[in-house]
Amino acid sequence: MRIVVVGGVAGGMSAAARARRLDEDAEIIVLERGDYVSFANCGLPYHVGGEIADRASLLLQTPASLHAALHLDVRTGHEVLAIDPATKQVTVQLPHDGTDVIDYDALVLAPGATAIRPPIDGLDLPQVHTLRTVPDADAIRTLLTDSADRAVVLGAGFIGLEAAEALRERGLDVDLVDLAPHVLPPLDDELASLLDDELTGHGITTHVGVAATGITPTRDTDHAVEVALSDGTVLPADIVVLSVGVRPDSHLAAGAGLELTESGAIVVDTAQRTSDPHIWAVGDATAVRHGVTGVLGAVPLAGPANRQGRRAADSIMGRLTEATLARPVIGTAVVRVFGLTAAVTGASQAQLRRAGIEHHVVHTHPGHHAGYFPGSEQMHMTVTFAPDGRLLGAQAVGRAGVDKRIDVFATALAAGMTMDDVAELELAYAPPYGSAKDAVNMAGMVAQNVLDGTLTLWYPHQLDEVLDTALILDVRSHGEYRRGHLPKALNVPHTEVRERLEEIREEAAGRPVRVHCASGFRSYLAHRVLVQEGFDSANLSGGMLTLRAALPDLVLDQG
Amino acid sequence: MRIVVVGGVAGGMSAAARARRLDEDAEIIVLERGDYVSFANCGLPYHVGGEIADRASLLLQTPASLHAALHLDVRTGHEVLAIDPATKQVTVQLPHDGTDVIDYDALVLAPGATAIRPPIDGLDLPQVHTLRTVPDADAIRTLLTDSADRAVVLGAGFIGLEAAEALRERGLDVDLVDLAPHVLPPLDDELASLLDDELTGHGITTHVGVAATGITPTRDTDHAVEVALSDGTVLPADIVVLSVGVRPDSHLAAGAGLELTESGAIVVDTAQRTSDPHIWAVGDATAVRHGVTGVLGAVPLAGPANRQGRRAADSIMGRLTEATLARPVIGTAVVRVFGLTAAVTGASQAQLRRAGIEHHVVHTHPGHHAGYFPGSEQMHMTVTFAPDGRLLGAQAVGRAGVDKRIDVFATALAAGMTMDDVAELELAYAPPYGSAKDAVNMAGMVAQNVLDGTLTLWYPHQLDEVLDTALILDVRSHGEYRRGHLPKALNVPHTEVRERLEEIREEAAGRPVRVHCASGFRSYLAHRVLVQEGFDSANLSGGMLTLRAALPDLVLDQG
Repeated sequence: MRIVVVGGVAGGMSAAARARRLDEDAEIIVLERGDYVSFANCGLPYHVGGEIADRASLLLQTPASLHAALHLDVRTGHEVLAIDPATKQVTVQLPHDGTDVIDYDALVLAPGATAIRPPIDGLDLPQVHTLRTVPDADAIRTLLTDSADRAVVLGAGFIGLEAAEALRERGLDVDLVDLAPHVLPPLDDELASLLDDELTGHGITTHVGVAATGITPTRDTDHAVEVALSDGTVLPADIVVLSVGVRPDSHLAAGAGLELTESGAIVVDTAQRTSDPHIWAVGDATAVRHGVTGVLGAVPLAGPANRQGRRAADSIMGRLTEATLARPVIGTAVVRVFGLTAAVTGASQAQLRRAGIEHHVVHTHPGHHAGYFPGSEQMHMTVTFAPDGRLLGAQAVGRAGVDKRIDVFATALAAGMTMDDVAELELAYAPPYGSAKDAVNMAGMVAQNVLDGTLTLWYPHQLDEVLDTALILDVRSHGEYRRGHLPKALNVPHTEVRERLEEIREEAAGRPVRVHCASGFRSYLAHRVLVQEGFDSANLSGGMLTLRAALPDLVLDQG
Repeated sequence: MRIVVVGGVAGGMSAAARARRLDEDAEIIVLERGDYVSFANCGLPYHVGGEIADRASLLLQTPASLHAALHLDVRTGHEVLAIDPATKQVTVQLPHDGTDVIDYDALVLAPGATAIRPPIDGLDLPQVHTLRTVPDADAIRTLLTDSADRAVVLGAGFIGLEAAEALRERGLDVDLVDLAPHVLPPLDDELASLLDDELTGHGITTHVGVAATGITPTRDTDHAVEVALSDGTVLPADIVVLSVGVRPDSHLAAGAGLELTESGAIVVDTAQRTSDPHIWAVGDATAVRHGVTGVLGAVPLAGPANRQGRRAADSIMGRLTEATLARPVIGTAVVRVFGLTAAVTGASQAQLRRAGIEHHVVHTHPGHHAGYFPGSEQMHMTVTFAPDGRLLGAQAVGRAGVDKRIDVFATALAAGMTMDDVAELELAYAPPYGSAKDAVNMAGMVAQNVLDGTLTLWYPHQLDEVLDTALILDVRSHGEYRRGHLPKALNVPHTEVRERLEEIREEAAGRPVRVHCASGFRSYLAHRVLVQEGFDSANLSGGMLTLRAALPDLVLDQG
């Protein structure tokens, strides 16, 4: 049996290696159009930034090492030009000249994705690069000369953020541009503003809600090019990193007549098999079902790609079982932005709205470990769940402990847990690691209170309406109130609510009472008193911390 | 309605606070025999060690703060002497003189556990203390004078380890004693030796498999007491910390005729209700069902206690739902030992053996994040699972990332996941946080290979038999082999296995081949070749790393 694998990075190489472990006798040929296989593409931004100093450490395997360990026939610089499913052959462009035709019994397509190139001039200038391959990183590093001191990064997604940080760490002034209304578009907006603050605090200038309209060479400035933005801004730059997203590289699949989605992703079944019974496909080029929204789309992530490769090999070898069939992808992802970590799993609020999925959201700001233990760092979390209690998604930003909580939520999501389940999770507690009621449990408990009516929430987007129609009751301390409060808010510290009920009733004058504190806990206590005393009360989800993150331009009253 | 809560720390105070949030009108009286409520008992060792410098930070609440925020009537120094379930009254010893009788409608027992005192002389000496309360920590700190330079810690469980580290950080010479064959008895022995190395490396002397037989005052040494051990050792000490375990403090419950287990834990239903319909019990004094072994016992952990308190309040208020009923406890726990973290969830191998539960175990040594990213720390993991694939337990030791992986496993356990599910978990990956195939996924994949026969393992406890009956094939590099190898092992680097099959066959001479490398991956590749070439092959689980940790006295051949 001959297995031909097209693409030798994450998913393709996983398929090849697994196939060899399962079948010593198969002939396994890996065709990679680039010069490198099994390279650490997720490490490229850190190599640009210098944190991964040794370029060689990115090259995890070579054709020689793969031959020695796994008896794989790995051919770099070999680009597949066409697939003929009828004859089960691929035509290959050889590194120098000429082409070859290779028969296959099983074909695995792992071509990955290609960078989206917006329709603007100047993308071919030598200062403009994507950051997806080792040669990309080499090219950007070559531009990091002593005279280079300005960079523009187009796209503030995961790789764009990493590239911006890397270039800033190299001492450049960096402008970061995204068409979306905030950086890291998959993040809920009330968390994204925290990243924006971190970027700005480290000297990066962010431009959101704007597009690049063109890149032109310059002669009269110290910088090689200028990037024009749709808001009229012109940004000089010595380096431009293009990172506005990717699309499935499915031209070979299309040429072979394989079924694609409307957006061009290769359709595969749960065994990674395409519409042709002898062709499998894995990784960024394939379509996956989102586990929460049910939307079919491409999810370019390394983890799923690796598992898909393994699964394709199992399928080719006839070893795939019900248990190892593909599962929906929930899009768990994480990024470091200087001292912050941002991580997501499941559906964002925007994804839920787009999919028309009814949901609740709660905001919490727990410490990453016990508050009485030195070094506790505050995390900022949003958790979404369905009216029936089923967890739908979780996101968090903070300086420590964020990746742990999102991994726990990702596991809970994979299990189809409810917020009751989440509240009851038994997580590891000692003061350096967490709290007796872990941040994850706390989110579950808040959700339980929302679901059973113990807690009614109001949200930052309702602020204007609340200001018009309700009494805002600020139950923080007098000192906190004086340092900045909402207009016309009545300040009654939470410990005084019981004895000042008549005053609150008079001030409310029949209006609803909308309570808040700094993070939502003290106001929850006040809310419970008010509700039981007959008030129409609701508590601001996440308190002033969430309000200010959601409405960064809000001006508070002082004194 | 009047609710009386006996015990004002974790579980009791959770019950009282939740009851108030649900019912503004209830009278809620908390009776605490000690001088402090809601103190951070898990923080006490760190206060002894000086890491939590400010004693006040351990006192999370006071009766005054609890009255102000929650209108609770908290009475410290009030010890309940007896319960009369017939009249629904408790008799209380008042702080100074006299007693009081208090009626209740609902009674919550949260008396906690008491330290086990072994039957030896000297436990009442002023140098001997447990470490469970603020006064305990105060007393130990008082003994930390300039002349105090030796301490003995009896018991190497979670608190014993923390106490030993704390006293060592204070500059004392510390002897740590445990009757069990290794430190941290809940840990699998092949992981515990890593903790022993860490303790020893930080100057702590461990004595395992021995008991203290007596503590006597001394006059002729620089130290106040001597601790005699069952192996004849005599340890001088200025401070002795007694931490050999706890038992449920159920004397009040027994006096009231409540149903107890044979070991004296209070029997409760899934709503935390005892055998008396007006009495609930929570926390360390109660019996819980272990989620994996099914064994009924006491699990003294803060997290479950807090959730039980909340649940008891819900039950008293008639708000308990099916979803919030008690679930089995899986015993997730974590401890820091100097630079190491050790964490466990589910059943240990010893617990599974005692319960007669058939299981497999796999050993892995993954990096806590991508190996190509600077600072990757190796973790050491054991994962157990049933023949049907169901996850049973996981343990890990390492310098980073351990608590995260155990929390993921704890969540998977709570969900009843199989190792197939674990292999497919979609966890957050970026180079600073994990790997595309996370350590958790990798353990799942190894387990899949074991379950479907792709991988056959052998274990350190089989070494003598293997040495007698099999060819040991060491597939590490020549350099690794020369630095230390098993007797009579044949060295064939994994990249040479295919071309040296005949040599291996001759050396085996009909015997089975038992392969190993450093951590188990290269030997897995070799195993797959050998099996497909007709050999009777098995791969050493966890490789030399696990072998040496399981058999720390093993002497290797050099050269």
